[in-house]
Amino acid sequence: MWGGRFAAGPDEVMAAINVSIGFDRRMAKQDIEGSLAHVRMLEATRLISAEDSSAIQGGLNTIASEIREGRFPFREAYEDIHMNVEARLAELIGTAAGRLHTARSRNDQVATDFRLWVRDAIDAGLDQIGELMSALVDKAIAHAAVVMPGFTHMQSAQPVTFGHHCLAFVEMFERDRGRLRDARARLNESPLGAAALAGTSFPIDRAMTAKTLGFDRPMRNSLDAVSARDFAMEYLAAGSILAIHMSRLAEEIIVWSTAQFGFVRLSDRFSTGSSIMPQKRNPDAAELVRGKTGRVIGSLIGLMTVMKALPLAYAKDMQEDKEAVFAAADTLSLCLAALTGMIGDLTINPDRMHASASAGFATATDLADWLVVQLKMPFREAHHVTGRLVKAAEKKGVDLTGLTLAEMKAVEPQIVESVFDVLTVDSSVASRSSLGGTSPDNVRREAETWRDKLKLQ
Amino acid sequence: MWGGRFAAGPDEVMAAINVSIGFDRRMAKQDIEGSLAHVRMLEATRLISAEDSSAIQGGLNTIASEIREGRFPFREAYEDIHMNVEARLAELIGTAAGRLHTARSRNDQVATDFRLWVRDAIDAGLDQIGELMSALVDKAIAHAAVVMPGFTHMQSAQPVTFGHHCLAFVEMFERDRGRLRDARARLNESPLGAAALAGTSFPIDRAMTAKTLGFDRPMRNSLDAVSARDFAMEYLAAGSILAIHMSRLAEEIIVWSTAQFGFVRLSDRFSTGSSIMPQKRNPDAAELVRGKTGRVIGSLIGLMTVMKALPLAYAKDMQEDKEAVFAAADTLSLCLAALTGMIGDLTINPDRMHASASAGFATATDLADWLVVQLKMPFREAHHVTGRLVKAAEKKGVDLTGLTLAEMKAVEPQIVESVFDVLTVDSSVASRSSLGGTSPDNVRREAETWRDKLKLQ
Amino acid sequence: MWGGRFAAGPDEVMAAINVSIGFDRRMAKQDIEGSLAHVRMLEATRLISAEDSSAIQGGLNTIASEIREGRFPFREAYEDIHMNVEARLAELIGTAAGRLHTARSRNDQVATDFRLWVRDAIDAGLDQIGELMSALVDKAIAHAAVVMPGFTHMQSAQPVTFGHHCLAFVEMFERDRGRLRDARARLNESPLGAAALAGTSFPIDRAMTAKTLGFDRPMRNSLDAVSARDFAMEYLAAGSILAIHMSRLAEEIIVWSTAQFGFVRLSDRFSTGSSIMPQKRNPDAAELVRGKTGRVIGSLIGLMTVMKALPLAYAKDMQEDKEAVFAAADTLSLCLAALTGMIGDLTINPDRMHASASAGFATATDLADWLVVQLKMPFREAHHVTGRLVKAAEKKGVDLTGLTLAEMKAVEPQIVESVFDVLTVDSSVASRSSLGGTSPDNVRREAETWRDKLKLQ
Amino acid sequence: MWGGRFAAGPDEVMAAINVSIGFDRRMAKQDIEGSLAHVRMLEATRLISAEDSSAIQGGLNTIASEIREGRFPFREAYEDIHMNVEARLAELIGTAAGRLHTARSRNDQVATDFRLWVRDAIDAGLDQIGELMSALVDKAIAHAAVVMPGFTHMQSAQPVTFGHHCLAFVEMFERDRGRLRDARARLNESPLGAAALAGTSFPIDRAMTAKTLGFDRPMRNSLDAVSARDFAMEYLAAGSILAIHMSRLAEEIIVWSTAQFGFVRLSDRFSTGSSIMPQKRNPDAAELVRGKTGRVIGSLIGLMTVMKALPLAYAKDMQEDKEAVFAAADTLSLCLAALTGMIGDLTINPDRMHASASAGFATATDLADWLVVQLKMPFREAHHVTGRLVKAAEKKGVDLTGLTLAEMKAVEPQIVESVFDVLTVDSSVASRSSLGGTSPDNVRREAETWRDKLKLQ
Repeated sequence: MWGGRFAAGPDEVMAAINVSIGFDRRMAKQDIEGSLAHVRMLEATRLISAEDSSAIQGGLNTIASEIREGRFPFREAYEDIHMNVEARLAELIGTAAGRLHTARSRNDQVATDFRLWVRDAIDAGLDQIGELMSALVDKAIAHAAVVMPGFTHMQSAQPVTFGHHCLAFVEMFERDRGRLRDARARLNESPLGAAALAGTSFPIDRAMTAKTLGFDRPMRNSLDAVSARDFAMEYLAAGSILAIHMSRLAEEIIVWSTAQFGFVRLSDRFSTGSSIMPQKRNPDAAELVRGKTGRVIGSLIGLMTVMKALPLAYAKDMQEDKEAVFAAADTLSLCLAALTGMIGDLTINPDRMHASASAGFATATDLADWLVVQLKMPFREAHHVTGRLVKAAEKKGVDLTGLTLAEMKAVEPQIVESVFDVLTVDSSVASRSSLGGTSPDNVRREAETWRDKLKLQ
Repeated sequence: MWGGRFAAGPDEVMAAINVSIGFDRRMAKQDIEGSLAHVRMLEATRLISAEDSSAIQGGLNTIASEIREGRFPFREAYEDIHMNVEARLAELIGTAAGRLHTARSRNDQVATDFRLWVRDAIDAGLDQIGELMSALVDKAIAHAAVVMPGFTHMQSAQPVTFGHHCLAFVEMFERDRGRLRDARARLNESPLGAAALAGTSFPIDRAMTAKTLGFDRPMRNSLDAVSARDFAMEYLAAGSILAIHMSRLAEEIIVWSTAQFGFVRLSDRFSTGSSIMPQKRNPDAAELVRGKTGRVIGSLIGLMTVMKALPLAYAKDMQEDKEAVFAAADTLSLCLAALTGMIGDLTINPDRMHASASAGFATATDLADWLVVQLKMPFREAHHVTGRLVKAAEKKGVDLTGLTLAEMKAVEPQIVESVFDVLTVDSSVASRSSLGGTSPDNVRREAETWRDKLKLQ
Repeated sequence: MWGGRFAAGPDEVMAAINVSIGFDRRMAKQDIEGSLAHVRMLEATRLISAEDSSAIQGGLNTIASEIREGRFPFREAYEDIHMNVEARLAELIGTAAGRLHTARSRNDQVATDFRLWVRDAIDAGLDQIGELMSALVDKAIAHAAVVMPGFTHMQSAQPVTFGHHCLAFVEMFERDRGRLRDARARLNESPLGAAALAGTSFPIDRAMTAKTLGFDRPMRNSLDAVSARDFAMEYLAAGSILAIHMSRLAEEIIVWSTAQFGFVRLSDRFSTGSSIMPQKRNPDAAELVRGKTGRVIGSLIGLMTVMKALPLAYAKDMQEDKEAVFAAADTLSLCLAALTGMIGDLTINPDRMHASASAGFATATDLADWLVVQLKMPFREAHHVTGRLVKAAEKKGVDLTGLTLAEMKAVEPQIVESVFDVLTVDSSVASRSSLGGTSPDNVRREAETWRDKLKLQ
Repeated sequence: MWGGRFAAGPDEVMAAINVSIGFDRRMAKQDIEGSLAHVRMLEATRLISAEDSSAIQGGLNTIASEIREGRFPFREAYEDIHMNVEARLAELIGTAAGRLHTARSRNDQVATDFRLWVRDAIDAGLDQIGELMSALVDKAIAHAAVVMPGFTHMQSAQPVTFGHHCLAFVEMFERDRGRLRDARARLNESPLGAAALAGTSFPIDRAMTAKTLGFDRPMRNSLDAVSARDFAMEYLAAGSILAIHMSRLAEEIIVWSTAQFGFVRLSDRFSTGSSIMPQKRNPDAAELVRGKTGRVIGSLIGLMTVMKALPLAYAKDMQEDKEAVFAAADTLSLCLAALTGMIGDLTINPDRMHASASAGFATATDLADWLVVQLKMPFREAHHVTGRLVKAAEKKGVDLTGLTLAEMKAVEPQIVESVFDVLTVDSSVASRSSLGGTSPDNVRREAETWRDKLKLQ
């Protein structure tokens, strides 16, 4: 590690800036998978002998074991993971190792490995998002009828249920999964066989390697195959939006955990305290989830900056793609785990939520809607009448339910007793039963549909 | 316009920061479409009478005409496009106008309008990208066999064809279209009916309005419907990657237009000159396409910064979403048009390209591959032999084709006459006939497949 | 305006992408200032005659009047502001106009104009920040002793005064002014005379034009003079940090305005309400200040993306610099004005603040400090004793002040009566009288120092 | 390291997201410096005894040795560097360790450490930039008179000297140093003594600790002291602009190293080759310098995203500040070292540069200027005459020097023999002797001034 300033001779400087084994070793598994697929194809197309193929596969499997068991000798002298594996293979099996690189170049090899790595990261991410969604769905089912304020501008606007709020995030995270699935489908093409950039004159079978590696098809242009990094940017963009969604939920946990709101309480496991201020329950984990959004967006911008205006085909700048993606994948995985844990452990304070929802004429809209439906008033006129009723209540120092029917009639003579049916927050949420509305029945139905959907996966 | 400093009273300041009609008037068409769908549904569900519905629809159609013909009185006093239309409607048809807002809120209205706008922008973008792809495909067909250097690190590595290079970008732009199509499919859900944030107690038919507006379905959570802006971020992310792809192509046009490269010549229409330096053909349009990437990425980051950690549901910060998207859509549309024009007009210099491709032992890889195939050498050994042959040629001051067979045999006795078949750049590109390789036959076949595909759309 | 897709012929496309008069007209004042300085120098160095100089100056002054009075015929055909002015000058004074461009190029001209514009924007910004600081200082003086919770993790940690909180932002904004002043000093060098990029063979006097335009000196390298845009990036970076500081204050206004916090109340002028929910006081202006940070950061990233890897000297990409800077300057000016207005109008609720500060053992640290000072306990031990006392109070259901001396002695026998002097939030803030501490005396002294400093400017 | 997905129990998740010792150990040196300054002040103000002070200092010095020698037991259980040091101190010296934290909190401690770290990074950066500037100045002196094309739009516009081009970057890097120096001066205030956020009631001497640590003064507001991270953002912004300047130079090295340009040749030490393509000299180091700009900008945006809208005072999100700064500082240090090495080793090809500069009527501007000066033509008319002369030369297939005087007179009868003095690229650069112009004399003078200035530092 540098102490701020790098003081070394030219050779060390060049090594330090050029070497990538420190981070691209994380693609070891993918590199070996890619090589195994390649060598089997070379054998099938008779580009190498069965003996050589067998020796190479044996050697690669040995290397895979060494890596899994932490015995593999990663060496900076061999610069990157590809050279490390190839050098080790030569040590293990001798000259046959030299045939592995037939009809392949480091350019298509690294593109293959990296696509496989991102694909694995997406698959893991999809599972983790599913777990977070399940945690939210469980909360939604448990608290389908708990009334809380629905906010606009952070001001209470209309009552909603806590379960409905949870499901709003389930919808967002489902779209995040959609983005990741689309990214996965789009990147799932094989660059292997593009060689350095022009394709090859060897009669290789790119469809075979693509299939072996689980790719849907070979990429159809060799220059594109080694030059493209849009798949990494798309992953980072989808990840950034996911991180933003997590940050929105984290922000709410932080605000709702304040003494002033008091809506929720984080478990001890996901907060830190103060030995002398027992009331202090710092939502550290939620703050970190919120803050780490910066890192994912930073990775996205970092890679976009790298790729902008970069001519084809391979340029060394593109080596910067991996650390950006690794940092984002790690951050997302950690934040998903932490947020899932926090949601699972979260306890809520229904009384504080209900009281907060009931304050401030939060059912004024319900009253206006009642006027429209029952008295056939135009919407805008109903709004004005409601405004006058609210002022009357305010003057009297009561909520809308605190007005007598007579007092209401003084403002609008056509009002009848049944108006009181719509003035409590509970009746309000119950009435919002149109598709997508916050009524407890809706919430329960939606949540159970989600539970089934998530289980099936 | 401010002269750098805003000097005005509090009311003007508040008006200036709050008002959006200056930019959201661009959603006028979508706003009226949304209102027409809503009023027809209100009539169908008997929430308003046929007479009121008819009056409202008539008024809205009048407003649509006024806007189309530039006669609509946009007024800052009515803050945004929604209020402007509503106020005008009241002027035109009187109190019935007050019924239009039944079971609707500005929150679901603006979300609806904005989704419709982005959808239109995507549709227009898809067409434009298709035109750019067609221009590239035409060039690929015309120059399928023109040999140019294939670069890595901006150093000539192996010969490719110009057509192959064009098709690499066609592949990239097709994935850009895929991203936009996926974004379109994901955003194509109707928020209308979510009302302020909680849904509504009116027995509305959200499926009907969704269908009328061409949405695939209503959104299933009212809080999500008014809070979500991931569709806008996804559009900006897809647009940023598209812009980066355009910047890569623009960079190449700029470099290839230099006197030193001399590969291509921009038409007069897309370059600017100097009255006294006739050789100067400044690639202004390409530079602007390259530079304007910054604006699209800036819009993406701007909106991500807005949305990060924003609690649900609607917050006024979200008003910042529109200008970011409008700026990006305009920029992309303009850059696509300019790039399509540039490619269409581009003339190339095949001789310079060929000469450049032929310099510097660019077929050394072909020689190595020949040794592997013909002499069964392991790849790594073939590499070493090739290195020695290249050094011999370098010493003699000739290209690989300038060595005699005897001189070759001095390095590797097994070499035979047929080696010379692979040493020209033309034979090299012809030989890369594996799937995705640069051979002229491949390029022609691919380009024609693309031409058919693009025509069918 | 494009409707999403740009459909026009090549010439319109080129015009649309190339033309800049739509935005660079905002530099008209600076362009004329620069030309006036240049022509006076040309006369002084006898490069043009006094007659020509006089005619040119007369023409430029006429043009300045035309622009001020809105009579100037801006024409797209003349592409940019420089050509518009030059063309108009020719119309007004004939061929003498052709001598103005002697020893000058559009490259050094635009660099000069843009530096002057940014300098003006900085000067205006410095004034506006000063006004915001004054508004905060006034609040600090008025509420120097109002106790509120000091938060960490949004959890009340220790009491502070509202005045102290205001002054924290005064410090931040002063550093923002420092950054802008440093940027101003660094950019205040004259590029004029660098000509196209190489300097000129005319015996010009660059020191003279620099002095006339208020620059500190001429730039010392002509290539740098026309290629550099770090001054614009530095301005945007300083502006982004300023915007972030404003967003932090805006966030607090929004949170403190919630019903749950109830610490502050925005004036009607800077909030919007709901006709039917009178309690709803939406902090729109604060939300917009918070959200518009995204636009400034977006401009910064946009320009950084443009400049990255751009070779010297002038490239057309750099035309993108102006709109980014203009958008940021406008946004900052508007946000500063809005925030200054909001702070000036803000009313606070000292009772809510005090009550909130008093809850939750907020003086536990004061108790621990008392143990260290009075009983000479090591800090860590004092912490443990305090923890036990807090638990005793919690068990009893009281605050620390609710424990009797006997109950305290049961935990730590050495405690004496005087401990109660440190247990109220008022005594707590009064005691923090070390330099920079929150004691009302400190706050008053600091605030008055600031008031004097701000008045002197 | 996570394999893409984090699968662990809640406690591990919380530990993983919360722990910072993995990176903040890099502040160990600064943490101990800060503690030593603090303990000496506690002794001087009699807040602790001389014995305790001595024991604590002894313990801290021991810890410093342990860290230097790699013997310090960093433990994840103690979360961060501050707790690790404190826990170790207790092991070494017993209960006296508990007095170190008197009148201090982790909040002011971490702010102090981080400012010291950034200050050290700036100091190291200033030295390294100085070395890069020296390398450029050396090149400028060596090649003060080497003529190369001066480019606009990457098209040759006017001849300049290579030395002049080098000095353009010296000017940019000097401004980068200015930005870092300004950032250093602004951050060089001591937060120590702000305690948790409110200051302290202990009679501490903040001026003393500030002085001991080399800070210019204590910060004047305790809330600001623990909340501010603008110093880190300012460092990252200055670093981003520096990185962009490096990327511009790297881009030129890459372009100039192409076979097509052939202006420069990177040394073997800073390029990689191909065993079979000896002409291939991949400018890997330059590409990495260019690409790594993305990482620095990504860090800047990451931290800005974290800080935007963050309420005071400390929030856990701010823990994200360090890795962003460390990554940027490491990247800048490495890129500066690599670029300095590359420039030092760079060999240039004066013949290619000269030939390239001479092509394409690059002295047309000189001819126009001659017409203005010698024949008193207005600039615009001189331009037209030059255009006609260039066309004549083009028609004849020669450069401007290839026209006879008679041929010139046919276009403009007043032209005389002396015109030929200005038509070669060497005379052109020699003539640009105005301040800042490219003439070799200017370049030599400037370069030597720089050499003296850089030596003195």
